[in-house]
This record gives sequence, C-alpha cells and structure tokens, in this order.
Amino acid sequence: MIKAAVLGYGTVGSGIVSVIENNADVIREHGVDMSVKYILDLRDFPGDPFEDRIVHDFEQILADDEVKIICEAMGGIEPAFTFSKRAMEAGKSVCTSNKELVAAKGAELMKTAKENNVNYLFEASVGGGIPILRTLNDALTADRIESIDGILNGTTNYILTKMEQEGADFDAVLKEAQEKGYAERNPEADIEGYDACRKTAILVSLISHKSANWEDIRTEGITKISPVDFEYAHVLGRTIKLICSLWKTENGYGAIVSPRMIDKDNPINCAQGVFNAILVHSDMLDDSLYYGRGAGRFPTASAVVGDAVELARHIGEHFSAGWSDEAVEFESPDNMTFNYLVRISGDKSTLKETVFRNADIVDAGIEGETAFLTGDMKEGVFLSEYENLPNRISYIRLG
Amino acid sequence: MIKAAVLGYGTVGSGIVSVIENNADVIREHGVDMSVKYILDLRDFPGDPFEDRIVHDFEQILADDEVKIICEAMGGIEPAFTFSKRAMEAGKSVCTSNKELVAAKGAELMKTAKENNVNYLFEASVGGGIPILRTLNDALTADRIESIDGILNGTTNYILTKMEQEGADFDAVLKEAQEKGYAERNPEADIEGYDACRKTAILVSLISHKSANWEDIRTEGITKISPVDFEYAHVLGRTIKLICSLWKTENGYGAIVSPRMIDKDNPINCAQGVFNAILVHSDMLDDSLYYGRGAGRFPTASAVVGDAVELARHIGEHFSAGWSDEAVEFESPDNMTFNYLVRISGDKSTLKETVFRNADIVDAGIEGETAFLTGDMKEGVFLSEYENLPNRISYIRLG
Repeated sequence: MIKAAVLGYGTVGSGIVSVIENNADVIREHGVDMSVKYILDLRDFPGDPFEDRIVHDFEQILADDEVKIICEAMGGIEPAFTFSKRAMEAGKSVCTSNKELVAAKGAELMKTAKENNVNYLFEASVGGGIPILRTLNDALTADRIESIDGILNGTTNYILTKMEQEGADFDAVLKEAQEKGYAERNPEADIEGYDACRKTAILVSLISHKSANWEDIRTEGITKISPVDFEYAHVLGRTIKLICSLWKTENGYGAIVSPRMIDKDNPINCAQGVFNAILVHSDMLDDSLYYGRGAGRFPTASAVVGDAVELARHIGEHFSAGWSDEAVEFESPDNMTFNYLVRISGDKSTLKETVFRNADIVDAGIEGETAFLTGDMKEGVFLSEYENLPNRISYIRLG
Repeated sequence: MIKAAVLGYGTVGSGIVSVIENNADVIREHGVDMSVKYILDLRDFPGDPFEDRIVHDFEQILADDEVKIICEAMGGIEPAFTFSKRAMEAGKSVCTSNKELVAAKGAELMKTAKENNVNYLFEASVGGGIPILRTLNDALTADRIESIDGILNGTTNYILTKMEQEGADFDAVLKEAQEKGYAERNPEADIEGYDACRKTAILVSLISHKSANWEDIRTEGITKISPVDFEYAHVLGRTIKLICSLWKTENGYGAIVSPRMIDKDNPINCAQGVFNAILVHSDMLDDSLYYGRGAGRFPTASAVVGDAVELARHIGEHFSAGWSDEAVEFESPDNMTFNYLVRISGDKSTLKETVFRNADIVDAGIEGETAFLTGDMKEGVFLSEYENLPNRISYIRLG
C-alpha cells in the first residue's frame, strides 16, 4: 500500500482525496494500491469524512518515511515551492496542479527531483484533466513537434462562446460568468491572458527542454472583443477564440497568446464553453487534438491522481522528463507573420494614403465603419502601420 | 544503443524504419538511442537506403540477442502470431499495428509477454496515430471509464463526409475513395463496419481486462446510407457518422457499431474526412476527446515507434497492461435503448394502426415518403415493430 499526503484541502485538494479514496478500486486495476495518510491544511474540518487525516504541520509529513507521494494542491509559489523541494530532498515524489509554481520554478524542482532519484509531475498544470503532457512526454516520442495551438483557459472560452451565441457584450458575460463561478472575482489573470500564457510557457519548456519565461511571450487578453467583432467573424465563416500558439523556428521558438479569428471548421473549435482543446502538429502524426475540461475540482484531481499513480509505478527510479534552466530563445514577436482584420471608423476612402489601400474590404453591414483584411504581414510592420491609421478602431489576428 | 527489427517492409513497415532512422535525434531527446538492425521481408529491395538490413529468415532475428525490440507490421494472423510469440519467448518485446491479430489473439500474446518478462504493445491498432490506448492505460488511471464513442474508421468517415458535403451517392463516393487510395479495392472490411468493430472489441478488452469477441458486437455498415438520409439529418441539425459505442453496464458492457445521426455540435464531429476521433466519458474527468489520423503510413508508424520507445524504456521489466482470456459479458443487443429515425413510403396515414401512430414527423420535403422519430425504445422491441411496417424504407439510430 502506497501512502500519499495531500497538501492543501481546498477545491482541488479535497477532489484529490476523494478520487484516491473513492476510486481506489479503479487505481488498483491499474496495479497501484494507494491511500491518503495525511492532509495538510491550516484549518480544521470538523465532521469531514477525512477529518482524522488532517495535520497542520508539514514536518510531520516530511518525517514519515511511509509517505512516498505528495500531491501539492496549495497553489501559489510559497510555501508550495519550499514544501515540494524539501519533500523531494526527503525522497518523496511530488505531483501538482500548480501552474504558477511550475512556470516560475519548474527547472529547479525538476533538478531537485533528478538529484534525489524521485520524480516531479504536473499534468494538471496545463489543460486540467486533458493528458497533454503525458502525450508529449510518453506517446509522441517519435515525432518532431512543430507547433501547438491551444484553447487553454476555460473562463475566456466560456465568455467568448457566450458572446458568440448571444451577441452579448464582454462586460455582461463576464458578470454572468462571475455569478456562475466560472470567473474569479478578480478575473485579470484569465481575461488578460496571463493564465493561458503561463500554460503556453510550460508547453514550450516541455518540448524545448529549456526554460521559457512567460513574460517573453506576447500576450493580449479578450477585454476589447466586442459583439461587432463576432459579426465580422460570422461573415467570414469564422469565430473568435483566445488561442495560445507556439511553433519551432530555426533557432528556437515563436509563441503568442491572443484573440484570433479562426475558421469555424478548425477542429480546435470543438472546444465550446469551459472546455479546452490542444491541437498538436508533428512531423509524423500530422495533426492530433486533445480535448476536455481544463479546470474544475474533479477533472483537475483526476490529472493529479493520474500522476500519483505514475509516481507509484516508478518509486526508486527517476523517469520524469524535465527542462534545464537554460533560457528558450524566442523569436522576436515583431517578426511573426499574420493576417489581420482591421476596423476603422468612416469609409474606405481614408485608406487611400496608406499601405492598406488595396486591402480586401469585409462588409458585415456595420454603419459608420470599414473593415479590411491584410495579406501576410510581419507583426512589427503591421503594428507600426496600424498605429499610423488615424481612424483605427481595432485589429485582430486571423488563423 | 537499442537494436530493433521490423517485420514486414510494406507501407507501415517502411514508415517505421524511416521514423526510427530519420527521427533518431527526437527519440534520443526522450532518452532512447535506437536503430533498426534487421528488416524481415520475403522480397529484396535493391537500391533501397536500408537494403543492407533486409533479411529473409526470421530465425536470424530470433537468434540475435542484441535485438531487444520487434516492430511487427506484417498484418494478418499468421505468421505474425507465431513470430510475435516466439520473439517474446526469446526475451524480445513486441509492438504492432496489427489490429486483426490483437483482436483475435491479444490475450494469448499478453500472457506470453507476462510469462517472459517482456511487453506487448499495440497503440497503432486503434485510432492509428492517436494515443488512445496509452491514455487509457497510463493517464486516465484514476477514472472509471463509463463509455466511449469513436469514429474509428477513416475510409467510412471520408465517404460520409463527402456524401454530406456534396450530396453524392454512396457508390459514387466509394469509387472516388478507391481511386484516391482511401478505400481498398475490396472495401468490405471498412464499409461493412468490421474494421471499426475489431477496434471496438480491442477497446472493450482494454478497459474490461477481459477478452471481447468482436463477433459478439452488433455491427452495421454504411452501404445503405443515402443522400436522402443526409437531408433528414440536415433538418434535424445533425449529421451521419459510423459510430463505435461501448458503455459499462451493471454486469458487463454494451457495444454497437452502426451509422448514427449525431448532433452537428457533438465534439466528435470535429473528425472530418479520414480523421478519427474518440470521445471518452469517465467519472472524474467527464468528457475528453482524442483526434487525429487513424491510418496512413507515417501516423501509424509514429504510434508503433512511440510504443518501441516505451518498450526500450522498460527492458527487463514487464509493465504492459493486458486482458485475460475470460470472455466479456455483453449486454444483449436487443436490450440497448435508442431513438430512431424511420423512413416509410407513402404518407403518415399508414402509421395509424402501428405503435408509431403518435411519433414526431420529420419533414425534409422529400416526395413520396414520410419520416418520423421514435422515443426511447429497446432495440429488440423497435426492430420487431419496424419489421411489421409494410412500407418501411430504412431506419437509423440517433445520438
């Protein structure tokens, strides 16, 4: 019987305890006998079915050699970082759903795992319950990963899906999402794209085996998307999604997180509402796609416990992939090439004096404005030309 | 350096050799150094870049202790079965794309693997390059798999996609698919659903850990689907796909392979043309979906070599999951419950004397016939009532 400890008894932590205990028979069919010995939390939980396993002192867990696996569900950098590092130094393997920690301190924790012949897994940090990291590490091992496009944030995908279906304003849908618990009271990390960006950085690190600094990735949120944008999308047979893109370049990687107008029949568009989807392009398999719930108590717990099972199968053997602290070389965002849909106020006559004078006009019947499509343009060139448009309203990338 | 042998130098076999040799650097990044020492084929391949590795005698491979991994790409039951079994008895692990062999002799080969402390993997046998077996064995290990719906045959999905897009007849599209190489000259195994059924049996075996006999699964092909059926689907906001369904019942499993009218916005409908998609419903993760190329030289080879990498990581250790030769208990097909769309010739007055007299009529503007939807019905009850309709044209299951 493998003994695990769960750090943090909030939404995800309590989900993890529930999955390990209630699905113990399923886990046993996969060759692992596991139970939770400790739950670390500052609070008491009188009346909770696992009340007797609650402890308040991490040292008690650390000192117990029977505990081989730690499921970290505290969130944030500290004390999660220190606890994870000390646990591995004490010979315990760690799995986590903590994307903030993995994005910030992943390389160091993976090094600690290797030095101590234990493992550090973090499937739940990207795409929630979707087994995308496992797939990249263990299944597509004969494929050169050329690019990944992902819908990696359920909150923004819920908002964009609602805006499309109901023609509603961003602010109204955000408010509704907050009321339903799909968006935080402070929604900045989601709606500004920071959460999606961290996950993108984790994916770049994983496939490059180097550390991607998430602050190096150009990131735009969805706060400026309006119902009018969806009207143009509709005319073009497209929809709008917050897309995380990364691709291999000659010397490193390109990456961007931004709203994009994508074809309606792009398979990634199967992700509606809070669902996530990840489209991987590799040289042998071509396109493959992975879809599921990117957040939520049980989907996240499912991924953490899936990791715990993998850790249990490899006790005494370091196997987990990792990345070094060498920095990923990112292509300059200004060198990335896109097509853009641009909206300006007034009619098209104002384009005469600009590089956009021959652009294709898109007519969605919107009064008082003109929209056009650019051809392929380097982002740096586009942005400087766009800034020169006196009557500019907005732009959005296609593809 | 791990030495592998590839059995069969046809489409898949040559793809496997190419992936191992050309992506050796990628495989090395995943911790495995591998090369192909032998290629077994009856033919010679003068001028082939790997001509020097061709051998005609399996005994030569068997006797070489340096060869630890066998990639079987011969197809068919014999001699693939005997070669795989003897290879494992000689201490070599085996991976394969041979669904016919896995469906027929899987339990025995897995037992041989276990007895000889080697492994038998067959990712490519279901969904081609889609890592669905890996996901079920290694990622969703904390989840109770409740049901799976799959589009598992690229040929039929190509035909149905074309029929929908072009309003074309089955026969015309089949002919075109044969000309393009998407359908075999003898297409029976695909269009009658037998290939999809074998893959369904493998999935049932994998998740039940028992042997599913594919002949126990009710299977209907797509040969009777007509453009008129797509007109009804269109009116209902649906499309038609060949769906492989399996689900846990109280004492065993239910399974059926048949054309189904599914909602257009069902995520599984992201699989257009030759693509496959597999929708897994499990108790913790809820819905997750896996999409990609279900066939083809390099996608299939990618999956086989992914297995070979996994075998290389576990030399000297039996880890591969398997199923026993105990038979899966299948629910009687007649007890399965569906809704049906039924087409009859003439007007609805002929329904008056039948159990369908209050059914919802579906009007697609087709002259000379009437279509209606049933409520939930046990399949056995439905089929006997359907057989009593003197003016019946066809039926199709919904959902």
